[in-house]
Amino acid sequence: MIAEILSTGDEIRSGSLIDSNSAWLSRKLEERGITVSRHSCVGDDIPMLVSVLREIGTRCHIAMVTGGLGPTADDLSAEAAGKAAGLPLLLNETALCNVREYFSSRNREMPASNRKQAMLPRGADMLPNSAGTAPGFAMQIGKCRFFFMPGVPFEMRRMFREQVLPRLEEMQGNNREIHQIQTVSTFGMPESAVGELVKDLPDIFPHIRLGLRAKFPEIQIRLYGRHHSQVHLQKEMEAAQTWVREKMGTRVFSGRGESMEAVVGRLLREKNATLALAESCTGGLIASRITDVAGSSDYFLFSAVTYSNEAKMRVLGVKSETLEQYGAVSEETVKEMAGGAGKLADADYGIATSGIAGPDGGSEEKPVGTLCIGLAGPDGIKSFRFLMKFADRSMNKSMFAMKALDLLRRELMRG
Amino acid sequence: MIAEILSTGDEIRSGSLIDSNSAWLSRKLEERGITVSRHSCVGDDIPMLVSVLREIGTRCHIAMVTGGLGPTADDLSAEAAGKAAGLPLLLNETALCNVREYFSSRNREMPASNRKQAMLPRGADMLPNSAGTAPGFAMQIGKCRFFFMPGVPFEMRRMFREQVLPRLEEMQGNNREIHQIQTVSTFGMPESAVGELVKDLPDIFPHIRLGLRAKFPEIQIRLYGRHHSQVHLQKEMEAAQTWVREKMGTRVFSGRGESMEAVVGRLLREKNATLALAESCTGGLIASRITDVAGSSDYFLFSAVTYSNEAKMRVLGVKSETLEQYGAVSEETVKEMAGGAGKLADADYGIATSGIAGPDGGSEEKPVGTLCIGLAGPDGIKSFRFLMKFADRSMNKSMFAMKALDLLRRELMRG
Repeated sequence: MIAEILSTGDEIRSGSLIDSNSAWLSRKLEERGITVSRHSCVGDDIPMLVSVLREIGTRCHIAMVTGGLGPTADDLSAEAAGKAAGLPLLLNETALCNVREYFSSRNREMPASNRKQAMLPRGADMLPNSAGTAPGFAMQIGKCRFFFMPGVPFEMRRMFREQVLPRLEEMQGNNREIHQIQTVSTFGMPESAVGELVKDLPDIFPHIRLGLRAKFPEIQIRLYGRHHSQVHLQKEMEAAQTWVREKMGTRVFSGRGESMEAVVGRLLREKNATLALAESCTGGLIASRITDVAGSSDYFLFSAVTYSNEAKMRVLGVKSETLEQYGAVSEETVKEMAGGAGKLADADYGIATSGIAGPDGGSEEKPVGTLCIGLAGPDGIKSFRFLMKFADRSMNKSMFAMKALDLLRRELMRG
Repeated sequence: MIAEILSTGDEIRSGSLIDSNSAWLSRKLEERGITVSRHSCVGDDIPMLVSVLREIGTRCHIAMVTGGLGPTADDLSAEAAGKAAGLPLLLNETALCNVREYFSSRNREMPASNRKQAMLPRGADMLPNSAGTAPGFAMQIGKCRFFFMPGVPFEMRRMFREQVLPRLEEMQGNNREIHQIQTVSTFGMPESAVGELVKDLPDIFPHIRLGLRAKFPEIQIRLYGRHHSQVHLQKEMEAAQTWVREKMGTRVFSGRGESMEAVVGRLLREKNATLALAESCTGGLIASRITDVAGSSDYFLFSAVTYSNEAKMRVLGVKSETLEQYGAVSEETVKEMAGGAGKLADADYGIATSGIAGPDGGSEEKPVGTLCIGLAGPDGIKSFRFLMKFADRSMNKSMFAMKALDLLRRELMRG
């Protein structure tokens, strides 16, 4: 089956917004053995929408459309779909109920404008939205089955999984090959070097396609397996993952797509250990990542985001002589920070960061990108110093946080 | 003039890579008064490329094509362009010189495969690449002038600025319209309600188009102005922004697209005031946002991410009786947290958060989505309690952090 993807909306057409939906949908379709032949994007404009819907209707079997389902005047997908198929819009009672329920479950009354969202082309198959107000719908235009979904990524993704995917599987019937995707997450080697290391994989494992994905600062190695036999595929995928782990060594931190903070959390939980942080250059980002994991309160006790030297001394007990002699960005200071945080919260492990995220604040001796990490654990306190500079402040912060989490992961795996 | 954008390559078609080039090019073209009517993306496939190039050649005046100029077998842009226009490929000596020079300036010899990059359709206008090996080219297909550029973003951007833009300006001559885009950032009202409030704008301001963008948890109101007279456009845009601010009131936090943390930072700087935080449910996210702003060390002193009750007591001096009597998620506790953080860091303002981000930990009395905020300032300590539940833990955290920053913004504007 051949599919196309259409994203709609002036924000994307005019470049105010980068379209991430099309890439996500492409991956999901290709993973399931549906070839994506083309993406298109047009703005909120009825004649243009009608024309592109009709074109797509002559070219392929399946189309995913995102955007234009909201309650405002520039949300035109239902109207355009109706025009393209020559069908009137009718009030869909179930859709109206769903929109009303969304509001009433939040103790709010449905604004009149949201009634528009329940107007769908006659005969359309309504797709309930469990994450927002806009119902989606599926319908035929030309030879193609169209799936209209919201443009807000998390609403679209949920609707795709809950509503579109089961319908696609039904359309694919028994012609389906078994698909499997595994994500091996790595950290510590640039994408080009990873690519070079694993480039022979498709020759050795003929039913597995290789994909690299830079999800800064990690590099994910994706294995896309496709075969008629579940048993055969399972074996080949396992062998391929082992092969990748041998090539990449300890740079692999998860073989099932977990985040670094989830892996660290799992290791802490396994050891029944607790963690405290002292963050300067990462500014709370490590704590925020760690607390993104549900249940993190079981092992995460405390982070002191000590941006000022005063706070480093007063809260963490860093000595003023240390700050004077070595500076805030130094191995000596992060050692005292890590020790202080661990002690203050009575935690088993303490990590501290101090560095220069930029764009200003660098010097010849300590340029932008300098990062010092202190790591306190049952074996005492260690310190590290790195230099790693990326395009901007927020990328540097992100890399600094990842580096600290990775050091902790390695420490937890050793002990 | 109407333009289209075509991005090529299997990486983008299959979703391995998100296409950021099309958004960037759209913005640059629209800023210069060229309307972008459509984006397309197809893979590395000659019949598909030829067909889409010919289609575009019938539809518009200008097209930007990215990708497919490299030295490998799947780089097909020149071949496809030649076929679409019915022109043979010829060796372009200047292009070959440029590629050779690129290598020799790096003390490397040109690999034989790079010779392919100098094969261009007969009569094409070669566009030198000052940032990489792949020369671009411009040529006519149908009624449209095509500009072929590399897919690597920084090479593409440089070629666009250095080579494409001057050619576009020549094509536009004196017919250029002036364009202006303004972003009004709002928080505290759902998208549908915002849309309802401002829907009359295009009727009152005929040269301004309206766009709404949900950048959770903020809603941006975009004003797209277009006019032949700079003076007229400036006036109309200013009047429109005033109109929007009257409609939206204090929910507007920036009229020039700043982030909430940048606005709060600016207000703190204007007041010469400092800030300390005590974060429980936001887990460091507020601190991380605040420190995303370069120069935030001027006003941000400290955040205590006190996830455990022990840390709340030990670091912030929250009384054990308060925790016992009212619980960690209570107005009483956040008041003591905010006061404690402000005092510990000797800051002018202190904010504290405690709440239930989910998915677990809710109760009948304090369901998931409950948020308590304490705000300590020169006028004493206030507390607030809210209930706002979104799709998942990370959205709840994000909304909690935004709500706290917004309360601080309002406090700073009042005082």
